Amino acid sequence: MVMSTAWQVVEYPDGEVLGEQFALTEMELPDVADGHVLVRNTWTSVDPGLRLRLRPSAPSGYFAAFPLRRPMDGILTVGVIEQSRAEGFPVGSCVWHSYGWRSHAVVDPGKAAMNGLASLRVLDLKRAPAQAYLGPLGGMGLTAYAGLHVIDALDGAGTLWVSAAAGAVGSLVCQIAKFSGLRVVASAGTDEKVAWLRNDIGVDAAFNWRAGPLEESLRAVAPEGLDFYFDNVGGTHLEAALEAMNNNGRVSLCGSISDYEREAVGPRNLFLATSKNLTLRGFRGSAHAPLLDIMQERLAPWLADGRLAYRESIYEGLESAPAALADMMAGRTVGKTMIRI
Amino acid sequence: MVMSTAWQVVEYPDGEVLGEQFALTEMELPDVADGHVLVRNTWTSVDPGLRLRLRPSAPSGYFAAFPLRRPMDGILTVGVIEQSRAEGFPVGSCVWHSYGWRSHAVVDPGKAAMNGLASLRVLDLKRAPAQAYLGPLGGMGLTAYAGLHVIDALDGAGTLWVSAAAGAVGSLVCQIAKFSGLRVVASAGTDEKVAWLRNDIGVDAAFNWRAGPLEESLRAVAPEGLDFYFDNVGGTHLEAALEAMNNNGRVSLCGSISDYEREAVGPRNLFLATSKNLTLRGFRGSAHAPLLDIMQERLAPWLADGRLAYRESIYEGLESAPAALADMMAGRTVGKTMIRI
Repeated sequence: MVMSTAWQVVEYPDGEVLGEQFALTEMELPDVADGHVLVRNTWTSVDPGLRLRLRPSAPSGYFAAFPLRRPMDGILTVGVIEQSRAEGFPVGSCVWHSYGWRSHAVVDPGKAAMNGLASLRVLDLKRAPAQAYLGPLGGMGLTAYAGLHVIDALDGAGTLWVSAAAGAVGSLVCQIAKFSGLRVVASAGTDEKVAWLRNDIGVDAAFNWRAGPLEESLRAVAPEGLDFYFDNVGGTHLEAALEAMNNNGRVSLCGSISDYEREAVGPRNLFLATSKNLTLRGFRGSAHAPLLDIMQERLAPWLADGRLAYRESIYEGLESAPAALADMMAGRTVGKTMIRI
Repeated sequence: MVMSTAWQVVEYPDGEVLGEQFALTEMELPDVADGHVLVRNTWTSVDPGLRLRLRPSAPSGYFAAFPLRRPMDGILTVGVIEQSRAEGFPVGSCVWHSYGWRSHAVVDPGKAAMNGLASLRVLDLKRAPAQAYLGPLGGMGLTAYAGLHVIDALDGAGTLWVSAAAGAVGSLVCQIAKFSGLRVVASAGTDEKVAWLRNDIGVDAAFNWRAGPLEESLRAVAPEGLDFYFDNVGGTHLEAALEAMNNNGRVSLCGSISDYEREAVGPRNLFLATSKNLTLRGFRGSAHAPLLDIMQERLAPWLADGRLAYRESIYEGLESAPAALADMMAGRTVGKTMIRI
């Protein structure tokens, strides 16, 4: 019998995420049935989207809310197979699956994954290190790629604004867009992140959104107006984008982290979408799973030869997971936040 | 020398439109220069969009605001040519152009029209009566048709909700969508309008939005959820639609009349666009002028054989224009509101 250490939610946060809202528990795993595997998890993911599930019910269409005092299902995780009764999944191979925030999991590869991505999948470690599959070659890369795809920016021309651009998704968006030939302007919330965007990510312009009114900052970096906006923030960021968009501009609605810990405020100037013929496309990366292979083929060589700048905020030990989530929500992490178990 | 009677704005409304904010003035027209024509106007249009231009500045990308104490340019109008020095525009022919809310206009057919539609154009009166070109065969028809086109609803399947469905655009949207095979649910603000939608427009279901919470009314008429929403209202209507949309649903942002006379409120649940992979497309009919001929070819036969139900609120005499606009904004008109000059 194998035991697993696993995080449970004991209380939904009312505002900020705090460590005491979670409890680290021991759970007994079922025996490995025919067709199943036992995985020892080595890396697990910390995403802004988890915050949306720390509620009695998650937004419609989104991943399910985490029930209280139950293991948290549906979090992308990388691990090594320790026992296998499933063909094509040999012991010792590195895989991803969706039973994260715990030390071990018994996985049924035939069970439909809740997030479209996280069926058990063997990872090619010759192509990239294991944890890259939680970042550029995983959900982050897919979200970045799909978000540019749905607004036809991959084959487009013009100026793109990326908000929360030093984040795991944002920094990939900036780079994919640059490689695709767009002019990219980026924003972040600290001067250090802005410097990284300018110097390492290679955006055309970057600014700290806390330094002044967004409308003025945007006019300064993109006097030609915006043709595309990749929204990771929502709220006043989205309003500023609508103001700055050129006619026929397109907006990718990826996330609105500014709203996750308080009551959302809708864009008061949404009528500009009508007057300027704008398109706003909401999307979840996992709804575009067929793009995964294309994305990996495109990004893996850039990652291998060092052209793709990529940062990780790695927290050591499963016990650090809630603190990592709290730090990420507060903007204290850079790049992809993950836990080394 | 020809004189024209013309409305001017003397004061921008702060809230409701009132008659005293306008003044009917006499203006002297220029001589008809080479290439120009003199038109005696016979019908002029009253649209919700005019309200957006009764401000110091109109929304970006939209038609220009009306300057104070100047003839109001850029309002679609039908008339008869009385003098012509332009080839292809013989005296006596019926035309449309964009110099409405006045009795006469000198028009340069070569001048780019501000709204894409309203260059001088000879109208085919064998196909439809003159005033139909201010309604189903004009900007209204184009707006309805383009709004369904941009969300791929003309070739789509599923359920469409149309708000302000008894309006000039809304009632056309309902009918084009029904002819295209969609299930159509419609809302309006009086029981009389709702009965008309059910009995004459032939929608699958209709409800009075004032009768109860929108979310409940929508669940009752469309328990299967919405695949498309044609938004003429904005505000809480748009929020209710986002709530009721199925995954991958599409929203046509045509107008938000609920916001035109007060501070706009953005949809607080816009994150549902992300979680449900929704697309929101703002559009102006005039940005899709190439669809005009296609729309007219499709709608004219339906209009001729009586299949297209169509109502007009006709106000007599140019002097009634501000009252007509005020009535329309307050929901006291049905169908296309226009002035017989």
